[in-house]
Amino acid sequence: MTFGFQVFAQDGAARTGAVATAHGTIATPAFMPVGTAATVKAMTPEAVRETGADIVLANTYHLMLRPGAERIAGLGGLHEFMHWQRPILTDSGGFQVYSLSGLRKMDEAGVTFKSHIDGTEMYLSPERSIEVQRLLDADITMAFDECTPFPAAEDVAAASMQLSMRWAERCRTAFVARPGYALFGIVQGGMYPDLRAESAARLLQLGFDGYAIGGLAVGEGQALTFATLDATVPHLPRDRPRYLMGVGRPADIVGAVQRGIDMFDCVMPTRSGRTGQLFTPRGTLNIRNARHGDDPRPVDAACRCPLCRHYSRGYLHHLFRAKEILGAMLATWHNLTHYQDLMANLRAAVAAGRLDNFAADFANTAATGDIDPLGNLPAPGSN
Amino acid sequence: MTFGFQVFAQDGAARTGAVATAHGTIATPAFMPVGTAATVKAMTPEAVRETGADIVLANTYHLMLRPGAERIAGLGGLHEFMHWQRPILTDSGGFQVYSLSGLRKMDEAGVTFKSHIDGTEMYLSPERSIEVQRLLDADITMAFDECTPFPAAEDVAAASMQLSMRWAERCRTAFVARPGYALFGIVQGGMYPDLRAESAARLLQLGFDGYAIGGLAVGEGQALTFATLDATVPHLPRDRPRYLMGVGRPADIVGAVQRGIDMFDCVMPTRSGRTGQLFTPRGTLNIRNARHGDDPRPVDAACRCPLCRHYSRGYLHHLFRAKEILGAMLATWHNLTHYQDLMANLRAAVAAGRLDNFAADFANTAATGDIDPLGNLPAPGSN
Repeated sequence: MTFGFQVFAQDGAARTGAVATAHGTIATPAFMPVGTAATVKAMTPEAVRETGADIVLANTYHLMLRPGAERIAGLGGLHEFMHWQRPILTDSGGFQVYSLSGLRKMDEAGVTFKSHIDGTEMYLSPERSIEVQRLLDADITMAFDECTPFPAAEDVAAASMQLSMRWAERCRTAFVARPGYALFGIVQGGMYPDLRAESAARLLQLGFDGYAIGGLAVGEGQALTFATLDATVPHLPRDRPRYLMGVGRPADIVGAVQRGIDMFDCVMPTRSGRTGQLFTPRGTLNIRNARHGDDPRPVDAACRCPLCRHYSRGYLHHLFRAKEILGAMLATWHNLTHYQDLMANLRAAVAAGRLDNFAADFANTAATGDIDPLGNLPAPGSN
Repeated sequence: MTFGFQVFAQDGAARTGAVATAHGTIATPAFMPVGTAATVKAMTPEAVRETGADIVLANTYHLMLRPGAERIAGLGGLHEFMHWQRPILTDSGGFQVYSLSGLRKMDEAGVTFKSHIDGTEMYLSPERSIEVQRLLDADITMAFDECTPFPAAEDVAAASMQLSMRWAERCRTAFVARPGYALFGIVQGGMYPDLRAESAARLLQLGFDGYAIGGLAVGEGQALTFATLDATVPHLPRDRPRYLMGVGRPADIVGAVQRGIDMFDCVMPTRSGRTGQLFTPRGTLNIRNARHGDDPRPVDAACRCPLCRHYSRGYLHHLFRAKEILGAMLATWHNLTHYQDLMANLRAAVAAGRLDNFAADFANTAATGDIDPLGNLPAPGSN
């Protein structure tokens, strides 16, 4: 299968379509669950698929440290290794080198760093990152870039972006084309519209199969995220997928789709699930709160996930209080289902040309907050 | 449905049959996975059922402490609470009071103890144990007994057994009969055949729906376990199920079935699964060992579980090294499947009148040990 992107319908800046890869097709806008260490935490791949996911993301940094890219290649590549025969996107490893690894030395060539697991000295460069992602057999490979800190003065952001663009060119050269496999470039430039435009122009000159927007969701707040999208997306080609890295909360995703983004990833549904934070159309709730202990109602009566079909809030509360693994399993399953159903609703809304109405309804419902505790319900016949 | 036990076939002292309960039928000999806190750890109920389990065991002590028996009753009982609509057996709480709780005071009436979770003072007696198990809605309720320590002098074991028999009578009185619900008595008496015979005779006098053998698997070793079974089982009626509590390793189960036991429970497959200990017909293996890291082969090529159908030893090794929840999930699934397939094989062997042959083959295969490491395989063409 040839890698490609087809737009089926547009609604303002938003679009819905499909990305074709060597391991299958991804309906867009798409949310990619994060499978850091070759597993979406607390989920079987079958369960991930049942939530509606077409693609998962895996972390190059984590996998090159443990179990090692060559070892995964020896075991048949990441799809075979983790029993997920659908598309996989790998990040470049850059973000985790900066956020997780110990002592590091960076120069034009690349980054030397120490494994956060055992202190082993490791090396990443544009060429090595591309090689590792090939060993993993990622359908979508991400260019290796530098993560611009936030906040950053304009000259710092500019120098960082320029380095990332030089590295992007080296990634372009190092990437070996195979049918159905893609390389995405990453727009950087901090919160500076001119730098974003310059970065996008440079990437377009090099030519990539898709374009990511990096350096957001770093604490800048939703308004600045959206402003940066507004300043960046118009510089990206219409006929290539656009991927907003590391975003985000459901409301962030809705706003980003309205601004023309096609792909997302975020640890929020999985990480929150493991701590008992549940997403519903009416916002979030913490199942550990005492109010849920005797509550026979499901987390979200309209949700199709196993948690909501088969279990009470009282049971999930108990599982989290007792630190039972099944709590993390069911809560993760629910949150990923919630995210995937949001994406399906967004796709349908774009196709029907009613995205703005959907977004308004979404915001209104989210503002209502969780259903009242049982004790606050009016007694039958009262009032 | 009326509670009952039907024997389909016998082979020596062994038998295969079915126990009928309010929530369905249990093929015997049966292994009951342990769902301590209203969950078989790291498993969905659907997965537990897929392994072949007809019944699960839940722990009265743990559930009365958290979330509380009255709370579970308010949420519809244990079947509804944990989404397991098949039979459930609950223990009496006695064993955990002795092994887990803090300061306690025991007299003829019952036991006062402190919760190991928060120090709350709690009380258990024959009457309260039966009441808690009714609130949980257990299909099979166990009599509340004292756990005789091991080793114990004969006079100590005798006094302990006599107390348990007086308590058994109070349980018999307290138990409210409902169609399909059963009360099992528990034979005690330490390792003393005369005390075991006396205990069994006293229980038969009272009359129970089934008879358990307690006080074994307490460190006495397999030979003494089997000797005590040989001294006890002949005193139990043929037309009632016999349950050997807390046993055991696969070889213990095979030997106990040969001696006429119909029901088993043990934390071993679930607890071992969470630590990376895997059961196979060739014995056990620890997947954390370095030899498995590059091994593309399944844990057990003949096993039907998802772990063995879809994943390499190398992948499971990685999951355990990375402390990923999926490792515990897949290893538990495998171990429970291994146990349930053993039970199915035992049932078939009894039905075919070839149990002794099966037991001999079982022991021979277990003695071969795990398959050779990949590095030890002869190179192609060598010698």
